[in-house]
Amino acid sequence: MSKKYVYFFGKGRAEGDASMKQLLGGKGANLAEMVRLGVPVPPGFTISTEVCKYYYDHGKTYPEELKDQVLKAMKELEEATGKVFGSPENPLLVSVRSGAAVSMPGMMDTILNLGLNDETVEGMIKSTNNPRFCYDAYRRFMQMFGDVVLNIKHEYFEEELNKVKTEKGVKLDTDLDADDLKKVVERYKEVYKKAGHKFPQDPWDQLWKAIDAVFGSWMNERAIKYRELNGIKEGSLLGTAVNVVAMVFGNMGEDSGTGVAFTRDPNTGEKKYYGEYLPNAQGEDVVAGIRTPYPLTKLEEMMPDVYKQLLDIFEKLEKHYRDMQDIEFTIERGKLYLLQTRTGKRTPFAAVRIAVDMAEEGLITKEEAIMRVSPDHIETLLHPYFEPETKKNASLLAKGIAASPGAATGIIVFDPAEAERMVKEENKQVILVRPETSPEDIAGMAAAEGILTSTGGKTSHAAVVARGMGKPCIVGCEAIEVDEKAGVIRIDGKEIKEFSWLSIDGTTGEVFDGKLATVKPQGLEGPLAKILQWADEIRKLGVRTNADTPRDATVARNFGAEGIGLCRTEHMFFEEERIPVVRQMIVAKTKEQREIALEKLLPMQQEDFVGLFKAMEGYPVTIRLLDPPLHEFLPKEDEDIKALAEEMGLSYEELKATVEELHEFNPMMGHRGCRLSITYPEIAVMQTKAIIGAAIQVLKEEGKTVIPEIMIPLVGHINELKYLKKIITETADKMIEEAGVDLQYKVGTMIEIPRAALTADEIATEAEFFSFGTNDLTQMTFGFSRDDYGKFVKEYIEKGILEVDPFQKLDRTGVGQLVKMGTEKGRSTRPNLKVGICGEHGGEPSSIEFCHITGLDYVSCSPYRVPVARLAAAQAAIKHGK
Amino acid sequence: MSKKYVYFFGKGRAEGDASMKQLLGGKGANLAEMVRLGVPVPPGFTISTEVCKYYYDHGKTYPEELKDQVLKAMKELEEATGKVFGSPENPLLVSVRSGAAVSMPGMMDTILNLGLNDETVEGMIKSTNNPRFCYDAYRRFMQMFGDVVLNIKHEYFEEELNKVKTEKGVKLDTDLDADDLKKVVERYKEVYKKAGHKFPQDPWDQLWKAIDAVFGSWMNERAIKYRELNGIKEGSLLGTAVNVVAMVFGNMGEDSGTGVAFTRDPNTGEKKYYGEYLPNAQGEDVVAGIRTPYPLTKLEEMMPDVYKQLLDIFEKLEKHYRDMQDIEFTIERGKLYLLQTRTGKRTPFAAVRIAVDMAEEGLITKEEAIMRVSPDHIETLLHPYFEPETKKNASLLAKGIAASPGAATGIIVFDPAEAERMVKEENKQVILVRPETSPEDIAGMAAAEGILTSTGGKTSHAAVVARGMGKPCIVGCEAIEVDEKAGVIRIDGKEIKEFSWLSIDGTTGEVFDGKLATVKPQGLEGPLAKILQWADEIRKLGVRTNADTPRDATVARNFGAEGIGLCRTEHMFFEEERIPVVRQMIVAKTKEQREIALEKLLPMQQEDFVGLFKAMEGYPVTIRLLDPPLHEFLPKEDEDIKALAEEMGLSYEELKATVEELHEFNPMMGHRGCRLSITYPEIAVMQTKAIIGAAIQVLKEEGKTVIPEIMIPLVGHINELKYLKKIITETADKMIEEAGVDLQYKVGTMIEIPRAALTADEIATEAEFFSFGTNDLTQMTFGFSRDDYGKFVKEYIEKGILEVDPFQKLDRTGVGQLVKMGTEKGRSTRPNLKVGICGEHGGEPSSIEFCHITGLDYVSCSPYRVPVARLAAAQAAIKHGK
Repeated sequence: MSKKYVYFFGKGRAEGDASMKQLLGGKGANLAEMVRLGVPVPPGFTISTEVCKYYYDHGKTYPEELKDQVLKAMKELEEATGKVFGSPENPLLVSVRSGAAVSMPGMMDTILNLGLNDETVEGMIKSTNNPRFCYDAYRRFMQMFGDVVLNIKHEYFEEELNKVKTEKGVKLDTDLDADDLKKVVERYKEVYKKAGHKFPQDPWDQLWKAIDAVFGSWMNERAIKYRELNGIKEGSLLGTAVNVVAMVFGNMGEDSGTGVAFTRDPNTGEKKYYGEYLPNAQGEDVVAGIRTPYPLTKLEEMMPDVYKQLLDIFEKLEKHYRDMQDIEFTIERGKLYLLQTRTGKRTPFAAVRIAVDMAEEGLITKEEAIMRVSPDHIETLLHPYFEPETKKNASLLAKGIAASPGAATGIIVFDPAEAERMVKEENKQVILVRPETSPEDIAGMAAAEGILTSTGGKTSHAAVVARGMGKPCIVGCEAIEVDEKAGVIRIDGKEIKEFSWLSIDGTTGEVFDGKLATVKPQGLEGPLAKILQWADEIRKLGVRTNADTPRDATVARNFGAEGIGLCRTEHMFFEEERIPVVRQMIVAKTKEQREIALEKLLPMQQEDFVGLFKAMEGYPVTIRLLDPPLHEFLPKEDEDIKALAEEMGLSYEELKATVEELHEFNPMMGHRGCRLSITYPEIAVMQTKAIIGAAIQVLKEEGKTVIPEIMIPLVGHINELKYLKKIITETADKMIEEAGVDLQYKVGTMIEIPRAALTADEIATEAEFFSFGTNDLTQMTFGFSRDDYGKFVKEYIEKGILEVDPFQKLDRTGVGQLVKMGTEKGRSTRPNLKVGICGEHGGEPSSIEFCHITGLDYVSCSPYRVPVARLAAAQAAIKHGK
Repeated sequence: MSKKYVYFFGKGRAEGDASMKQLLGGKGANLAEMVRLGVPVPPGFTISTEVCKYYYDHGKTYPEELKDQVLKAMKELEEATGKVFGSPENPLLVSVRSGAAVSMPGMMDTILNLGLNDETVEGMIKSTNNPRFCYDAYRRFMQMFGDVVLNIKHEYFEEELNKVKTEKGVKLDTDLDADDLKKVVERYKEVYKKAGHKFPQDPWDQLWKAIDAVFGSWMNERAIKYRELNGIKEGSLLGTAVNVVAMVFGNMGEDSGTGVAFTRDPNTGEKKYYGEYLPNAQGEDVVAGIRTPYPLTKLEEMMPDVYKQLLDIFEKLEKHYRDMQDIEFTIERGKLYLLQTRTGKRTPFAAVRIAVDMAEEGLITKEEAIMRVSPDHIETLLHPYFEPETKKNASLLAKGIAASPGAATGIIVFDPAEAERMVKEENKQVILVRPETSPEDIAGMAAAEGILTSTGGKTSHAAVVARGMGKPCIVGCEAIEVDEKAGVIRIDGKEIKEFSWLSIDGTTGEVFDGKLATVKPQGLEGPLAKILQWADEIRKLGVRTNADTPRDATVARNFGAEGIGLCRTEHMFFEEERIPVVRQMIVAKTKEQREIALEKLLPMQQEDFVGLFKAMEGYPVTIRLLDPPLHEFLPKEDEDIKALAEEMGLSYEELKATVEELHEFNPMMGHRGCRLSITYPEIAVMQTKAIIGAAIQVLKEEGKTVIPEIMIPLVGHINELKYLKKIITETADKMIEEAGVDLQYKVGTMIEIPRAALTADEIATEAEFFSFGTNDLTQMTFGFSRDDYGKFVKEYIEKGILEVDPFQKLDRTGVGQLVKMGTEKGRSTRPNLKVGICGEHGGEPSSIEFCHITGLDYVSCSPYRVPVARLAAAQAAIKHGK
């Protein structure tokens, strides 16, 4: 039996279904599914993605069986429509569209009205009694076919069209009648000739050329770039399918029209129908943003029955797909056709709300709700917004359509390529301002802080893409005239130059002059709080925060942090009034001198810890002992050394000598971490005193529960830990005994040196907890200095040597192996060992998933990543079972 | 039944034997063994080491059973000697000596003539008819007992003895008669009284006090220090035993005497009896060096029968113990007694000869012979050493870290270029003295006799390069301040001018003033060649060398190297006529410019490889691609940058910019190794062309077998290897095809990044061989920068955090785990994977043992370590089975 490549749908029968996305593409699979659901859909057939793969694997040829299968499907289509492809009497017209398993809006080619030629146009006139409409369809088809299939510049067509208008002395297309358009068709034939082509009169010839073009568009630059930007991996998709669908026309009069709709509001997530309707128009008019559409209620006004039918379909589709749907429909002479349904893109805010609402409606489970929200969404929701007072007094320039929420500020740039360059090379903050955007602009949009267009609606390219990116975007801001040549935008007669600051609020559609101050959102509320609460019920990993100040600790706690996983004590050392004392400690020549300086630091450090313990009452607070090499606290340049020497009452030579003595060739692997405290145990003693002293103070004075965890950095050998643990416990136990309090504390270690992971079984005999420092662990496992690897890592990723930057996403194969080994070995000698992670990876979803799989107890991340981590941890638990 | 604590020996019966050293100490066990062998030994008994342990575990008390057991043993001793302990008629005298399982010469206490008192001395006079001898023995015992047991200063005794001599008007002890000595005894009693003691007249009281003293001496400062210095670990020994032995006297006239002897010459290893004899003397007279003894032949002259009896005993003991024996004997009135036998210490040279001779005599097996030679011995035998007598009298200036063995003498020169010039032009002998060395100094180092640096550790540049060159080197000699400007070095306030003579011993780290006489090594011949030949038959590990020049390769091959395990191509880049071209490559702005420079380097590199391939004909030659970061080839100081810029026709700013651009914070983990060739594939192409071009040349022109192995450094991810292997094989295969030769080559990788070991299964799918670079692997596994860890490693060892420097001895627990994992994982995907090691550890015996256990195929080390590695590999094979 020959392989099946073509799948028919229509007349209540469909060979495919929604589960066959990989094979039929999203559009094809959903069209088939809608037919199965009894939703009115124009009939058609889908050529599978396997043909696309075959096409590229076999030098752009097709499987032998394909021709017959297409012929057969076309026969069925003729039966279903009662029309005949290429018939001069009652011709069947079709659209030819791409459709991959993953939606790539606007990236690949589409051809409408295929099947028209000099003969069939006459047949169409017979059946529609509308010669103007038919010749308009014909000339549109010729233009589209010429452009898409034969790469004839569309300006050439526009030129001829304009000439005819000029000759007649009119301005609008609609002022041309059937005869004028017939003339245009003849002129278009000349355009083909001039370009060295002949317009194919044979509909089958048209069809195969169009199919070629669609398959060919899979590998066009735009599509490749889109897949790259959206992380769609080479080979994860077979290719695109081709959908050949009977044409329906929304531009056949006032009883016709076209629209797009969402079953819920894609901006807010509110449960209300949301969409746009354009009477007497084809779908591309809406997408192209040429005419500004009406809200969906216009349809209710004009055709209440059809509107009701549409609402029923909305209900049916949402229930069936159990998610918010993005729908395209066309009404041809009062008859409704669904052209497409797909899961609708939404803003992060809407994503959360829809997920929560649907779970509460009982449409999906809590787990599904959690899986529907991307951790990135959460992060976006926590992004800054304009400071309200500033905003009140800001100069409002214009108001457009709020297409993607959030506030952004940057300098105006018109050219997307320039925007990309300025961000990358000059580290500028940019707002991309354009009449409209098109798929080539994607890289520029990605680079920009926000996007502003003067035309287009909520479903225009700019709006859809910006929402997908979670970037603030305003569209259809018609008050703004973009004059690229003059390098200005004009609003109400006022000119603003390119490269001036502009601020946009994508939530309200407001455009402001200048650079507005932004604030961070205050906290978690509404649906976001709810979904995170559900996440907390499900997740197995604890979520702590990396915080060095009471302020950060409080923010993090409000975001749901369950303790501090990493407090870097050295950050406290850099404060203005402390650094002189720290330096005094460093230049000390004897233990006694050093102890005098440490004695001065002690009350300062203790005060810090008091604040942290209060902020984290009842939760563990993990404090890491001094980590960086001492030279980081001293200046490097001669000028600065001279100044400091004077300040400290030292000779320049003396201080210079200390700086030189402390210089290291590879400080990252030098005298730092626990190595410092082993050389200068008095530092560990001071820090222990500050920690335990603070804990006793908070416990005694405020009766608050305090759980200090003292963490020793950079341990590679059990004896390092043994040596310092003895010093720490001796100091701490004495203080606790003298204070007569019941204070429990733990002494544990960072696991950040490969040897520590390799010998974790030994180390766990001393360590009461582990915290993986995956920043350093990644450095040493890869041998990549974080300060230097920037010089080659880009090239590594470009050349495909690394898939991602291992400092951003935990390398499971290598570094992950050490994390796993460290955890397992550690627990082999101390079964109840608490294990966490406090590197940057602690806030990155894929790394959090790995931590869950590996059985860590908690992750620790920066305060603003805490909600992200809560969700990601729950998703990991759902994905891999609790 | 009560526990046995006391072991009798004598009268042809012994309760112990040689296997019971741990329990009876070396002396006690060997005395028992000699009795069993029928060798004449004064009878006695041994109180076991368990009593010593009990003594310290129980507040310096003895087990209950001990008293009875000692009483019983004393009875047996009385029976054996026919004398009675404490008898006024025929008294038994005994010696009381310590004796642990490990010999600790002179560290613990000994008491002779115990049992004498006012009564027994008279009984002794009766049986000896020699009152002077008896009173002399009595007063000696009193003095020794007072000193050792009661801590009475021996000067007090000397004083009284001198007074008696003065009163009599004589000078020598021998001028005193029995009455005088009797007077001395009385005066000694007063000394006891003055010190608050009473001399114990009861022999049993004497005995128990003496036993207390011996056990007490186990924990005296001297003994503790000795054990520390000799690496005898706390707890590895139970304690000391106490030997109570019937006294025999060598000082009873001309038919008495005492001596020590070796069964072979301990200096040369020659098979001839070697020893000293002193008539009419006690053993302590020989040891104390008061009288000069005769050669052993004196005994042959004086008492030929006793001499013959002694020789028979030598024969018997050597056969029995199967090793060269160190013997003490005493002759009492013509009767021979052996007092001790033990394995004799010997020089490295003798060690080798004795081992080989004994194996050839059939006394021991070849395996035993190999185990008898220490790898350190081999190293010593291959290097020049200072003439021992000269060294004894030389002025020791300082001691640094012994970094490369051998003795060297020359005039102090600071500037490497000057050193080179003086050697070449003035034919001077030079010691290069510097704070530290860097790659530019190589020519100066090569010219010098030896190298001395004031900073750095055993793996510093100076140390590594010197070892590679087989040159004596001392590093980290912090006592020396090098003041180049003043043209002096300062040590302890003393100044020594540049161009003065200096002598350094790289084996011990000693620095001597002036010019010491040196002895040249013999090289591989005679017994050394023989034992290494046997080692080769037994060892399983291959031994290759790390060599960058044909000269080194030839030296190594003569030392038995079976190929090159590591050729560092960058060392070739530093040569005088090349460094400008290398720099030209580095400052190149475009690929084209870089290729022009590489084109110039190509013939130079090819010429190097031709030399190596010729020298290593028939053996594999592993060549590592460029490894160090590029900034190592450029100057750092502004002055030098200016000079170089001028030389290169660049502006200072331009060159300075390049230097700054190449600067890295942690160059060890920066842009180096394979990362360089991934950024600049043209470097890999040039090096491949040079290697394969050279191989083809040698193969074609000389018909020699060439086995090139191209090694890629610093691989951490399989994709790095994949990327470069493709470039290398494409280049190489094309050349081989064009040349029309049959040339096999391999492409493999260093395993020196932890991630490479962790993912060795993946990497082995591409790599055709592995070579563990344990220097870098140790750096990254520990997170210890080799250039910086010197600042804290000493303290780590002092504080017991590390037992040894992990760069010297492979850390089996951590780094070793990665080596094992890398090997096993690598072979899991490529079963025939060849695995070697080329870090410094490849020449260190314990690390070599680990490589054997782990199943590596070969080790590679510097040329002068090759013989060491051959022996160590054989020892590992013997110890762990082939």
